[in-house]
Amino acid sequence: MKEKFKVRTDLALEAREDIQMSDSELDGVIVEEKMNSHANIHVIKLTITNEHGAKLLKKPVGTYLTLEAPDMVQPSEEYHREISCVLAEYIKDLIRPYWREDGISILVVGLGNREVTPDALGPNVVNNIAIQRENEVDNQKISISGIVPGVMAQTGMETAVIIKGVVSETMPDVVIAIDALAARNSKRLNTTIQVTDTGIHPGSGVGNHRRAITKESIGTNVIAIGVPTVIDTPTIVYDTLENLLKALSVSEHFKSVSDTFHRFNNDEKYQLIREIINPEMSDMFVTPKDADETIKRIGYTISEAINIAANS
Amino acid sequence: MKEKFKVRTDLALEAREDIQMSDSELDGVIVEEKMNSHANIHVIKLTITNEHGAKLLKKPVGTYLTLEAPDMVQPSEEYHREISCVLAEYIKDLIRPYWREDGISILVVGLGNREVTPDALGPNVVNNIAIQRENEVDNQKISISGIVPGVMAQTGMETAVIIKGVVSETMPDVVIAIDALAARNSKRLNTTIQVTDTGIHPGSGVGNHRRAITKESIGTNVIAIGVPTVIDTPTIVYDTLENLLKALSVSEHFKSVSDTFHRFNNDEKYQLIREIINPEMSDMFVTPKDADETIKRIGYTISEAINIAANS
Amino acid sequence: MKEKFKVRTDLALEAREDIQMSDSELDGVIVEEKMNSHANIHVIKLTITNEHGAKLLKKPVGTYLTLEAPDMVQPSEEYHREISCVLAEYIKDLIRPYWREDGISILVVGLGNREVTPDALGPNVVNNIAIQRENEVDNQKISISGIVPGVMAQTGMETAVIIKGVVSETMPDVVIAIDALAARNSKRLNTTIQVTDTGIHPGSGVGNHRRAITKESIGTNVIAIGVPTVIDTPTIVYDTLENLLKALSVSEHFKSVSDTFHRFNNDEKYQLIREIINPEMSDMFVTPKDADETIKRIGYTISEAINIAANS
Amino acid sequence: MKEKFKVRTDLALEAREDIQMSDSELDGVIVEEKMNSHANIHVIKLTITNEHGAKLLKKPVGTYLTLEAPDMVQPSEEYHREISCVLAEYIKDLIRPYWREDGISILVVGLGNREVTPDALGPNVVNNIAIQRENEVDNQKISISGIVPGVMAQTGMETAVIIKGVVSETMPDVVIAIDALAARNSKRLNTTIQVTDTGIHPGSGVGNHRRAITKESIGTNVIAIGVPTVIDTPTIVYDTLENLLKALSVSEHFKSVSDTFHRFNNDEKYQLIREIINPEMSDMFVTPKDADETIKRIGYTISEAINIAANS
Repeated sequence: MKEKFKVRTDLALEAREDIQMSDSELDGVIVEEKMNSHANIHVIKLTITNEHGAKLLKKPVGTYLTLEAPDMVQPSEEYHREISCVLAEYIKDLIRPYWREDGISILVVGLGNREVTPDALGPNVVNNIAIQRENEVDNQKISISGIVPGVMAQTGMETAVIIKGVVSETMPDVVIAIDALAARNSKRLNTTIQVTDTGIHPGSGVGNHRRAITKESIGTNVIAIGVPTVIDTPTIVYDTLENLLKALSVSEHFKSVSDTFHRFNNDEKYQLIREIINPEMSDMFVTPKDADETIKRIGYTISEAINIAANS
Repeated sequence: MKEKFKVRTDLALEAREDIQMSDSELDGVIVEEKMNSHANIHVIKLTITNEHGAKLLKKPVGTYLTLEAPDMVQPSEEYHREISCVLAEYIKDLIRPYWREDGISILVVGLGNREVTPDALGPNVVNNIAIQRENEVDNQKISISGIVPGVMAQTGMETAVIIKGVVSETMPDVVIAIDALAARNSKRLNTTIQVTDTGIHPGSGVGNHRRAITKESIGTNVIAIGVPTVIDTPTIVYDTLENLLKALSVSEHFKSVSDTFHRFNNDEKYQLIREIINPEMSDMFVTPKDADETIKRIGYTISEAINIAANS
Repeated sequence: MKEKFKVRTDLALEAREDIQMSDSELDGVIVEEKMNSHANIHVIKLTITNEHGAKLLKKPVGTYLTLEAPDMVQPSEEYHREISCVLAEYIKDLIRPYWREDGISILVVGLGNREVTPDALGPNVVNNIAIQRENEVDNQKISISGIVPGVMAQTGMETAVIIKGVVSETMPDVVIAIDALAARNSKRLNTTIQVTDTGIHPGSGVGNHRRAITKESIGTNVIAIGVPTVIDTPTIVYDTLENLLKALSVSEHFKSVSDTFHRFNNDEKYQLIREIINPEMSDMFVTPKDADETIKRIGYTISEAINIAANS
Repeated sequence: MKEKFKVRTDLALEAREDIQMSDSELDGVIVEEKMNSHANIHVIKLTITNEHGAKLLKKPVGTYLTLEAPDMVQPSEEYHREISCVLAEYIKDLIRPYWREDGISILVVGLGNREVTPDALGPNVVNNIAIQRENEVDNQKISISGIVPGVMAQTGMETAVIIKGVVSETMPDVVIAIDALAARNSKRLNTTIQVTDTGIHPGSGVGNHRRAITKESIGTNVIAIGVPTVIDTPTIVYDTLENLLKALSVSEHFKSVSDTFHRFNNDEKYQLIREIINPEMSDMFVTPKDADETIKRIGYTISEAINIAANS
């Protein structure tokens, strides 16, 4: 199997795109387009059905819904309401298995650092969530609670450990964890929402959680909602390199160089990137200059979706 | 025993002042003045030694250190450093019993709502605390972690329950809980720090925690540090009434009224206050107009004291 | 003329209520109820037409629209949208005279201190406003700019001076200044919006601006939008006193005292209040415990109203 | 003259480093090392004395002090106090010409967006500054005022226009403008402070001010203090390219390619970079993950330096 060098991405869909195989060839990975009535919101459902697919995409077995809303960076209130409604449907689908006979109790966890703009998505969602204590809706008792655990630099504790403690005391049926993700492609920044029933895994997100936030680690079911708000600096280096090679291949003079590069295997390319990137860069991220307003808006949109999903 | 009607106060010292008895008459309550080298910082140690004292002051058995620093509202950096040092000594005294042979791990809990100025003291302290993971100081391993659990309106969960969950997972030797308190006397606003080994009790503070934060409720030792940042509105009514009666007693014409009032017992006075205060007022608090800067400064001063106390 | 002692209020409607005269007797003050289709939003238009009216109400000649929306403290999004629409109509009425032939440029000024919860209304509005640069709407060029000048303790400069400077450089047709007000009646807290074409006057609001923000002081037309978010402490004392007197008047024993009080003239009552209130209290305010969420929501509602008013 | 392609930098010192000439060859540019008693703080004074130097470095004629403090990212309070003292000396030097006989009035302007972490340096400094109104120090009246004008996306107005308006009303002797800068070299991030008497120029900083903030544009003298808190994405591309070429030159196979590249002139290299960078990247910046704490600390350090410089 010839595969491209995989740049780190938190999005299953991007991981899929890295594999140069047709859907039919991909054992353990099913990709379906979900139709919905909203013109400019596109939903793709990617299911990893077995360990082979998990290994291929370097993501755990489970369902990954990707909602692409290219205008999400725009301040249109109406469009954001539509996104909330579409997202609510998919959240409803994913939490359905966790309802008890007489209701559901949901703990919304806002991961990330509220003081760092692109990492504040999760805290923003919890700030906007409509907390409710055993509200009666159609004879069902629905509770929504929320917490912003903070990041390890602020608390000195693993985030997963804090959540596990709160879960063990309050016993929610499901945790919905919101996190800012890293994307590979700058076009996905603040335009894509990924919802998954697989939880959150080490190395994901802006804050690089060190431990997984999954049913195993925190003791209850986990739905993870993520939005790419940053690009890792190695991604930019990789993109630059690829673009450079493309540019070189046009010129007759450089064609041989470009060809040589493409004969490199992934490990060789990776070594080269490791060499040419500044070591300081690995602790940095790339983010749009107007991220603050955008991320507040998306946080509000996601909190609305959770409210709708729980109460309808 | 004839006692004045007790207006709610979170300060043991104010509760003591309500009792019109000399120190020697007070079984179960010991009040000592602590000398220290700093001219304008005054420390009083009040110890409630038995249930009789506890009942009298309506506070649990334990030690209550009250640090009075009238200039704490001023922005003098040097004076605040002195307060940090004096406070650090008393925190050290109170946490001493909780050291293990090879160190101590402290969880600093910032109670209150970071979005409400006079309730943000606790969150401010945790923001400034120097988080450390098993630092070696003189062959002792010292850990300081911190958490801002939020208030029930934000989380939908009891604060004590969140803390209990985190404590059960991380097993700190002692929790230092910081809270904004309600004072009876406006002169104590932002000038007094109370440190106690009795934890935090229902009805205390700006946010009116509904459950105690004590060794019983959270599962580890609790030191509580509180600063009065608000006055409850009933306090103002009571003060007004008292002042009115004093004013009336001067006039010959009203003296009989004033006397009549003072013949009222506490329950009668309380009924009167209940009647004359607007019901909406009970959900309000009184706070100085320039509270924001003052409370940030005090938050910094307390976080420094904890840093010094843990590492020296 | 026998009038009740006037407790300070920023609301013209409350000033009107202090005058114990029928509408027909009030020379220079016209009060009209404005009907609107929204069940639970009540609008009263008070016009002060001459100096006599101005002196009577201690407010300048001009139009004062008071929008009473008792459920504004509730988080209903739909109700807030209705308030925005109703408010937008009245803002449109008041800015109509300031349109040029080819458009209008509006400077929204968020008065107050963003760090103090009940004073952050103005900054919240500007945070949410849709800034626009010469947008074309129906062949009209509409500009909306915004500024949060800060309070004197933060800037060392008079707020009116900062605004005057910005106005002299950018020449907006009208300034819409948003301010947190002080009310006399706790029922008006966060439920009433006052819109006026008279600007903002010394001693108004939470922050006690020292200079007027009017056409004279800043050099362009001023519409002021205010919401009472605090009650001054003297108001509480006055309320308490009034309630106490009512309570006393029921009892035969105290009836004579109550009667005596009511024979006091205003100055005597004022002296009494001055005596019985703590001097520290004058720098304090009273605010609801859950003010933060409420004030953010109202800020958003007002910013929406301005957006609608400018663009329709 | 053969010069390296100049990547955009706000630091005069980096602009100097781009020129491959010895100091003696550089007409119009003088570089002196300033000694100071503090071991780990290094100060370089670069003076551009004529238009030739200005053209060479693409910076206006004037004085540029660069304070290099490699440990400024560390939380040591003592070290930060030393930086404040050293910085204060240089601020004092630069504001000396603007003292009147009887004092000085300083307006501190915090440029940038307080909601975006790496752009919040200026707002942080103004938050911490000790505002004073005509304080008497040694028979001199010293005033310090401060303002956070916001960025154009928030206000709809040019920052320079807002400042000009405030200056024309308050007539300060000097404006000290604080801005977050872009550096070329990641080692300078949050470790370097540049102080200059030339003001702030278009294209500088995180927020890309469109108009200069200089004596000409705002009407009073301007001292600018800047700290690089971000790296522009093109810088990273350029660095990557350079590193790649170096890596290539080692291999015999690629040596000819590397040589070819180095024969490219600047325009050719620039075209190549333009081609290989994603267009979306130009609106993005690169910032360290833990920027929030660092930038708050540096903001405090600079505000302390201004306080010391004004009052000693």
